[in-house]
Amino acid sequence: MTAKPISFGIMLHGAGGHMNSWKHPGGPADASVNLDFYISQARKAEQAGVAFAFVADGLYINEKSIPHFLNRFEPLTILSALAVATDKIGLAGTISTSYSDPFTVARQLASLDLISGGRAGWNVVTTPLEGSALNYSRDHPDHALRYEIADEYLQVTQGLWDSWDDDAVIRDRETGQFFDPAKLHALNHKGRFFEVAGPLNSPRSKQGQPVIFQAGSSDAGIGLAGKYADAVFTHSPSLEETRAFTNRVKDAAVAHCRRRDDVKIFPGISPIVAETREEAEAKYDRIRNLLSIEEALAYLGRYFDHHDFSQYDLDAPFPDLGEIGRNSFRSTTDRIKADAAAGNLSLREVALAAATPRPNFIGTGAEVAERLIEWIDAGASDGFILGFAVSAEGLEDFIRLVIPELEARGRYSRDLPGETLRDHLGLPRKESRYAQAAGIVAKAG
Amino acid sequence: MTAKPISFGIMLHGAGGHMNSWKHPGGPADASVNLDFYISQARKAEQAGVAFAFVADGLYINEKSIPHFLNRFEPLTILSALAVATDKIGLAGTISTSYSDPFTVARQLASLDLISGGRAGWNVVTTPLEGSALNYSRDHPDHALRYEIADEYLQVTQGLWDSWDDDAVIRDRETGQFFDPAKLHALNHKGRFFEVAGPLNSPRSKQGQPVIFQAGSSDAGIGLAGKYADAVFTHSPSLEETRAFTNRVKDAAVAHCRRRDDVKIFPGISPIVAETREEAEAKYDRIRNLLSIEEALAYLGRYFDHHDFSQYDLDAPFPDLGEIGRNSFRSTTDRIKADAAAGNLSLREVALAAATPRPNFIGTGAEVAERLIEWIDAGASDGFILGFAVSAEGLEDFIRLVIPELEARGRYSRDLPGETLRDHLGLPRKESRYAQAAGIVAKAG
Ligand SMILES: Cc1cc2nc3c(=O)[nH]c(=O)nc-3n(C[C@H](O)[C@H](O)[C@H](O)COP(=O)(O)O)c2cc1C
Ligand SMILES: Cc1cc2nc3c(=O)[nH]c(=O)nc-3n(C[C@H](O)[C@H](O)[C@H](O)COP(=O)(O)O)c2cc1C
Repeated sequence: MTAKPISFGIMLHGAGGHMNSWKHPGGPADASVNLDFYISQARKAEQAGVAFAFVADGLYINEKSIPHFLNRFEPLTILSALAVATDKIGLAGTISTSYSDPFTVARQLASLDLISGGRAGWNVVTTPLEGSALNYSRDHPDHALRYEIADEYLQVTQGLWDSWDDDAVIRDRETGQFFDPAKLHALNHKGRFFEVAGPLNSPRSKQGQPVIFQAGSSDAGIGLAGKYADAVFTHSPSLEETRAFTNRVKDAAVAHCRRRDDVKIFPGISPIVAETREEAEAKYDRIRNLLSIEEALAYLGRYFDHHDFSQYDLDAPFPDLGEIGRNSFRSTTDRIKADAAAGNLSLREVALAAATPRPNFIGTGAEVAERLIEWIDAGASDGFILGFAVSAEGLEDFIRLVIPELEARGRYSRDLPGETLRDHLGLPRKESRYAQAAGIVAKAG
Repeated sequence: MTAKPISFGIMLHGAGGHMNSWKHPGGPADASVNLDFYISQARKAEQAGVAFAFVADGLYINEKSIPHFLNRFEPLTILSALAVATDKIGLAGTISTSYSDPFTVARQLASLDLISGGRAGWNVVTTPLEGSALNYSRDHPDHALRYEIADEYLQVTQGLWDSWDDDAVIRDRETGQFFDPAKLHALNHKGRFFEVAGPLNSPRSKQGQPVIFQAGSSDAGIGLAGKYADAVFTHSPSLEETRAFTNRVKDAAVAHCRRRDDVKIFPGISPIVAETREEAEAKYDRIRNLLSIEEALAYLGRYFDHHDFSQYDLDAPFPDLGEIGRNSFRSTTDRIKADAAAGNLSLREVALAAATPRPNFIGTGAEVAERLIEWIDAGASDGFILGFAVSAEGLEDFIRLVIPELEARGRYSRDLPGETLRDHLGLPRKESRYAQAAGIVAKAG
């Protein structure tokens, strides 16, 4: 058996994942609204064989938000722009099922998939931040309801994407026949949350349908991933925890009559790499020093519905928060609470770790490469999403120091395996539900 | 006084405005989903000094729709792609206020405006086609209600676009100050249809705010245009009717304390140009012959809620339709009914004229150029949107034969006057409402 190659995505999150990454001198301070920066990051990643670019999103800001996310590009527009500025890299963006219309979103993603030649992906999120409701003239659905909506939403969008069989459009100028009506399918969905007749005014793409990413880690999130997701974006607390999570998602896929390999797991990681271990530590220090303790408390508050942590003693044990944070980033807040209890940590320690966590991939290129291979070989994941704390420096270091080490070990190729995002992820083209049904009939007959 | 220069927009509508333009050999049959074709049309127009590209849209299709619109790009995604593929041309797209969320749309347009360096425009439509409701889990609001929603929708989006003063974001790496909280404005809109807190997670753009186009011609449409629009897209039945319409819109602007010149009128025209008048007529004949009478009836039906016209005698007078078509493209259907009555036309004549109307700009380059100048000098409009019946041939002919004639008459320059769409339209940068308020206070003080 040849060793499994390692696959990467890259977060395009402006200046970086760190709250104060905009202060880091390695990149432009306005990175989050700088088109040239986005294009250059995407192109560098593409040349290095990164499988996809990934754009996160949020629908609510206030003065306490991460500064450089106060102004940022909207995912569909920036990804459509990148579709023209790049050739091969996949283009995945976050859109919430709690605050959008499935007909519009199905269509925009289908259009991105056409424009990019089959490179579109959709990170399906249910929107943890309650404040989002304030921008959408409605109430924030609770956690369980959000996932019920998301389930029906995915039925609708995937149904719409199959409106036209692959060979439905003929465009015969001689006969005047534009399409074959027998190969056009109205959806006529009537469900609990949505009524959508269809058909979609967009054909299927080179990869069949956009790739579905999913990013919730609760039981409900794992259930949704098992049913629909082609890929999952998750945390990376440790190899063991990530492997356990990966197995739960793959089990959930099997429970939905899919194969374990039909859903690829991508933990987000923030490697810090340098020529020596000491230099890597120095880089980490520079990043940590981008932040004051007041800022760290505010950062922590984001996960807990913007709870005001400045009211507590910094050096007393992490406070008991009761139900606060249970309805938003639940899996994250549960983990923070558990870590605090396990380590008997002070609020100061929790806040500093939350704002600038020590990455589990830090060291020389060889060290990081070995660790990545260890995770893959242990079955912890299928690849990684690189969400550098500081985007510009992070990507440059990774390409310069880690990629060659992976290549030397025969575990990485800069040549992307195909043309579409599904190709890059090792997934087959998504067959239409109608072609599948016909296939089953044909086999049975 | 120097003569007023003439300004053009170009419809990017795939193969063309004609129902069967996809059959015309001058362009690719799949033009409506062909990125390369869109890019090449936009670049040709840009090089010829066309001020903006314009993408129309619809939210409902069925087997009777215009064939090449059964599959087409979604406006925001294709325009974002074109933002990277072009440098100067404005990029305007159609989005319905009846079937979308103002926070999302404000943000996507703001993002397009950033990506394009201040070239975004929004054609605000209220969606005439009732079928759209079938794709959006709701009822179709009636004509009056749609315009009431649109009015509040524009208050919200324009309010959101002013969330950040032009100098609100500082990004001072020394002091650590990212922005000035005094220059950030939450909207806190609570109206009849929308509650939107804001602020928007997007800054103002190079042109301040995206350009507002409006495309309804009823009294309610004119009222909305007078209040909000920077430009109006309208029909071009005749010089006199268009001039009357133009005056009504400019009067409406004045009634809203704006200047007549604050709103630019762009009738859509479909010129057919050739070296000689006979050749132009032959081109028109070729286009008319792309269509059978059955197809012409179906085309007519589109304006009348997909009414089935095949039930009537083709050569009897145009039937009395009562209320049919009153709730969709009302101004169009009223005009069709009036023309039929005035000319005592048969259904056949009405259908053929509706599907392939004889353009009011047909002839040699010099003839068409003179006619365009005549319209402008008569005050009928500020410019024209070129919606060629057959896109590829139409644009090529126009650039080759009409533009040089306009240049020779000193009425056209291929050099666009500035960088932003507002520059191209002769509109000042849109000042923020907060800057304006401060300015008024300063003057009063
Ligand atoms: C790794 C990861 C990335 C996420 N990215 C986003 C995002 O970009 N935007 C967003 O609104 N929510 C994002 N979420 C939130 C999830 O979609 C989900 O709403 C939230 O985690 C609560 O669901 P859960 O309890 O199932 O995790 C992310 C969650 C995870 C775990
Ligand atoms: C020149 C013109 C172009 C239009 N373009 C669109 C369009 O692209 N998409 C759409 O849904 N409606 C479009 N409309 C419809 C209008 O927005 C409006 O809903 C319709 O005309 C009915 O309103 P009215 O009675 O005020 O004209 C257009 C209308 C006109 C007159």
